[in-house]
Amino acid sequence: MSSQDHPSGRLIKAPENFISPEGVRTVFAEAKAGRRNFVRGAFAAALAGAAVPSALAQANPVPTEGGDPNILELPAHSKGLGQAVATDGYGKPSKYESNVQRRPSPGLTQTTQASVSFAPLQSLFGIVTPSGLHFERHHQGWWDVDPSKHRLMINGSDDKMLKKPLVFTVDEIMRLPSVSRFHFIECGANTGMEWGNVAVPTCQYTHGMLSCSEFTGVPLKILLDMAGVDYKRGRYVLAEGADGSSMTRTVPMELIESGEVFVAYGQNGEMLRPENGYPLRLVVPGVQGVSWVKYLRRIEVGDQPYGAKDEAVHYIDLMPGGQHRQYSSTQECKSVITTPSGGQVLLDNGFFQISGLAWSGRGKVKRVDISVDGGQNWKTARLQDPVMSKCLTRFSVDWVWDGKPTIVQSRAMDETGYVQPNYKQLRAVRGTRSIYHNNAIQSWLVQESGEVKNVQLS
Amino acid sequence: MSSQDHPSGRLIKAPENFISPEGVRTVFAEAKAGRRNFVRGAFAAALAGAAVPSALAQANPVPTEGGDPNILELPAHSKGLGQAVATDGYGKPSKYESNVQRRPSPGLTQTTQASVSFAPLQSLFGIVTPSGLHFERHHQGWWDVDPSKHRLMINGSDDKMLKKPLVFTVDEIMRLPSVSRFHFIECGANTGMEWGNVAVPTCQYTHGMLSCSEFTGVPLKILLDMAGVDYKRGRYVLAEGADGSSMTRTVPMELIESGEVFVAYGQNGEMLRPENGYPLRLVVPGVQGVSWVKYLRRIEVGDQPYGAKDEAVHYIDLMPGGQHRQYSSTQECKSVITTPSGGQVLLDNGFFQISGLAWSGRGKVKRVDISVDGGQNWKTARLQDPVMSKCLTRFSVDWVWDGKPTIVQSRAMDETGYVQPNYKQLRAVRGTRSIYHNNAIQSWLVQESGEVKNVQLS
Repeated sequence: MSSQDHPSGRLIKAPENFISPEGVRTVFAEAKAGRRNFVRGAFAAALAGAAVPSALAQANPVPTEGGDPNILELPAHSKGLGQAVATDGYGKPSKYESNVQRRPSPGLTQTTQASVSFAPLQSLFGIVTPSGLHFERHHQGWWDVDPSKHRLMINGSDDKMLKKPLVFTVDEIMRLPSVSRFHFIECGANTGMEWGNVAVPTCQYTHGMLSCSEFTGVPLKILLDMAGVDYKRGRYVLAEGADGSSMTRTVPMELIESGEVFVAYGQNGEMLRPENGYPLRLVVPGVQGVSWVKYLRRIEVGDQPYGAKDEAVHYIDLMPGGQHRQYSSTQECKSVITTPSGGQVLLDNGFFQISGLAWSGRGKVKRVDISVDGGQNWKTARLQDPVMSKCLTRFSVDWVWDGKPTIVQSRAMDETGYVQPNYKQLRAVRGTRSIYHNNAIQSWLVQESGEVKNVQLS
Repeated sequence: MSSQDHPSGRLIKAPENFISPEGVRTVFAEAKAGRRNFVRGAFAAALAGAAVPSALAQANPVPTEGGDPNILELPAHSKGLGQAVATDGYGKPSKYESNVQRRPSPGLTQTTQASVSFAPLQSLFGIVTPSGLHFERHHQGWWDVDPSKHRLMINGSDDKMLKKPLVFTVDEIMRLPSVSRFHFIECGANTGMEWGNVAVPTCQYTHGMLSCSEFTGVPLKILLDMAGVDYKRGRYVLAEGADGSSMTRTVPMELIESGEVFVAYGQNGEMLRPENGYPLRLVVPGVQGVSWVKYLRRIEVGDQPYGAKDEAVHYIDLMPGGQHRQYSSTQECKSVITTPSGGQVLLDNGFFQISGLAWSGRGKVKRVDISVDGGQNWKTARLQDPVMSKCLTRFSVDWVWDGKPTIVQSRAMDETGYVQPNYKQLRAVRGTRSIYHNNAIQSWLVQESGEVKNVQLS
C-alpha cells in the first residue's frame, strides 16, 4: 500500500523487537572501550542478530562507502556541523513529513474554488491544528487581502438599531481589548459522505473538515457597544464577508451578548492565514464553520433572522418526511478515533494507545467511552487536560490487540448530558437523505492483516 | 524607520478617525439604491473627507484603470474567483506578514551553527508560538534526522541501575501512552544582553529565546519503568542528543517521577520541527531549554549528577564574589510587555490594550501587575484562561495614553508567592557579570514621538 493510494499520513509500523539486555550490556561495555570499538562492536552485535536495533542504531552508523563493511562511520549528524540558525526565517516541517498534507477530494465539487480540503487528523497529536494543515472550505476561492485596505463596518438595518455606525481599520481593531481562546471549528458538512454510507477510506476524509486553534480577537460585543446598539431592538446580526461569494450569515444576539463571539485577527499565535479569512474572521464558538465568516467586512444589526441564501437554501437538513430543518447550526457532541483509523496499518499485535478527538458545540466534553468489540463493551477513556468549552478534547485508552479482526469506536458525552448517537439512533430521527450535521459514532474495522477500514454498523 | 533597521514586526499604526454616523448613513442609503451607486457614492463621500475610511474602504474599491477616477470598481477579491483549495498542501502566512520572522543577531556568535535565532514576540498573540517562528538555539547546527533510523536507548551507569536496558524505535515510542501538554521553553541565556545594560532594541532580541507549544510524547517514567529502573539507586539521568555537539544534561529523578518530564515527538499538533529536535526531544517543564535535549538518543540512569560540560562550564552564573553558581536550571518567574515594546511606534495617543506574557518554572502565574509610570503605581492585569503550569500566560490591561513620555513595566508573581525582581533587587544578589538567568522587570520607554525604546531603570 503506497502513501499515494492511501494518503493517510503516518502508518503505525511494526516495532522491531526490543533489544535483549545482554545485547545492550555488550554494546555498553564496548562503548567504554572507546568510540571506534563501540561502533564496530555494535555492528558485530547487530550482525549476530541479538541486538537489532542496538546502540548501533542510536548512533545511526552506516557502512563506510567502499570500505570494510565491519567498519562503521557515525552518521553525518553525529559528527559534523549542521545547518545554520534562521536557515528559514519561517520554518518548515521535516522532509520526512511531506505526506502530512491537507488534501482535496478529487471530484467532490465541480470547481476547485468552491471546494474543500481536509485536515490530516490521523497524523495529528494533541488538540492544536497547525495552521498550515487547517482544513479549507471556500465558496469562491481564497484571497490574500491587503490588511491596510481592509475595513470592518458596523451598521444597523435601520436608524434605530444603533446610535453611531462605525468603520474600523484592522489596526483600530487591534488596539482594543482582546481575548485568546482555543476553539474547534467544524464544517456543517463534515462526515457528510457517511449519510450515504460511502465509507471514504480515511479519517482525513470522514472527519477532516475539523480543526482547532487558539484564536485571538476582540469580542463583537465591544464593537457593538461602541456603536451604541439598542439590544432590545437588535436581536440578530448579519455577518458579511468581503470575498466574491457574498457570504452572509445570521448570528443571534444572545451568542454575542454572552461575550463568546469575537472578531479574530490571530490564530495560533500569528495573524490568520489567508485561507482562513485574513485579516479578520468572525469566531462563533460551537457553531458550524460557515458562520465563522471569513474576510469579515460588515456586521449589520437587525431585529429578525436574515434568511440569507447560505442559511435558507444551504446547510439545511432534509428530514424523513420530506421537510427540512433550518438554522440547526450548533455542532452537536461528536468524537472520532484517529489512531487506529482508516488507511492505517497495524503491522503487529500487542500494545497500542487508542487516541482520538471529542468535541461539543454545547460546552465541555464530559466523558468519552471506547469499545474495541463493535459496541458490546465500553471503557471510559482518559481526557487530556485542559478540557475547554467548545474546543477539541484529546482522549486516549490503552489497548492490547490480540491480532483478531475487531471494530473500534468512540462515544462522547458533553456537559449537558447529551450522548453521541450511533447510526441507528441518528437515522431513526433524521433519515438518510441529509448532507449536514452527522455526528454519529464512527466505526473502524481492524482487519487481521492489520489494515484499518471504514465500516458502518447499521 | 525601516523594517530592516528595526525588525520588530507589526507596528501599531495610527488609526484613522472613526467615520461620522452621517457619513455611514449616506453611504448606506446609497447602497440601497444599487451597487453601482453605492460604490460611486462611497467614493464621493470619501472625497468629501467625511467618510474616510467608509463603506468604500470595506469593499476596498480602486479607480478603474484609465477610466473616470470617480467610477470605482470593487476590488478583485469581492467579485472574482480566488485561489483553489489545497493551493498549498501545507499553507503559509500571508505575504503581508513576511516581516514576522525569527531572526539571528548578527555578530552575537562566532558561527551561525552554534547560535541563536529569536522569536518575534512583539508580533505574536495568545500563548502558542507558531512552530515556524519558534526560537532556535543550536550548539552544532540543526539536522533533519531520518526517523526510521533514529533510536532511543535507555541504559544504566552500571548493571544495578535497571533490570533491562532497552532501545526504542520512534514507532515504538509512538505506540505507548502519551500526554499532550502546553509548556514554555526558555533559553537560560534569554535576556542575557541586559546584564550588560546593552539595551538591544526590540522585545524579539531581549526576550525572544522564549516559545510555547503543545508538546506530545511519552512520560519518561513509563520508559524507565519498562526498563525496570531501581529508583532507590537511580536518582539522576543523563540525557544525550544525537547531534555533533554531544549535548548532555543531568535531570534529577524527582522531576521524572512526578510524571512531568516526557519524550516528545509532537509539537503543536504535528511532529517536532527539525530545528527543535525532530524526531525526539526531551521536555523538562520549567527547566531552561538546554536540558530539553534535541535529537534525543540516550537516557542513562545514574546515582549522581553527571557534571557534563554543558552544566559544569556553561549555563552557570558568575556571582559578585567571583564564585559561580551551578545547576540553577529552573527558570524563575518572569514577564514582559510585548505591546507596546521596543521598536514599535504608537502613532497616536488614546486607548491601547497593553499586552504581554508571564511565566514561571515553578508552576502557575498567579498575578501580573502593570505600571505605566515607571514603577510608581501598579494595576493588576487580566490573565487569559487557561492559566497552565510552566506555560506562558497572556496578560492584558486597558490603557489610555495621554501622549506624554512614560515607562511601562510588568511584574509577575507565581503560585509560590515569588515576585519578579527589578534590576536593583536582582543585582544586589547576583551582581552584573552574569549571562544567564536574568528575570528582571523589563522597562519600555514610550517617547513623545510614540517610538518605544528599551531602557533600564537602576
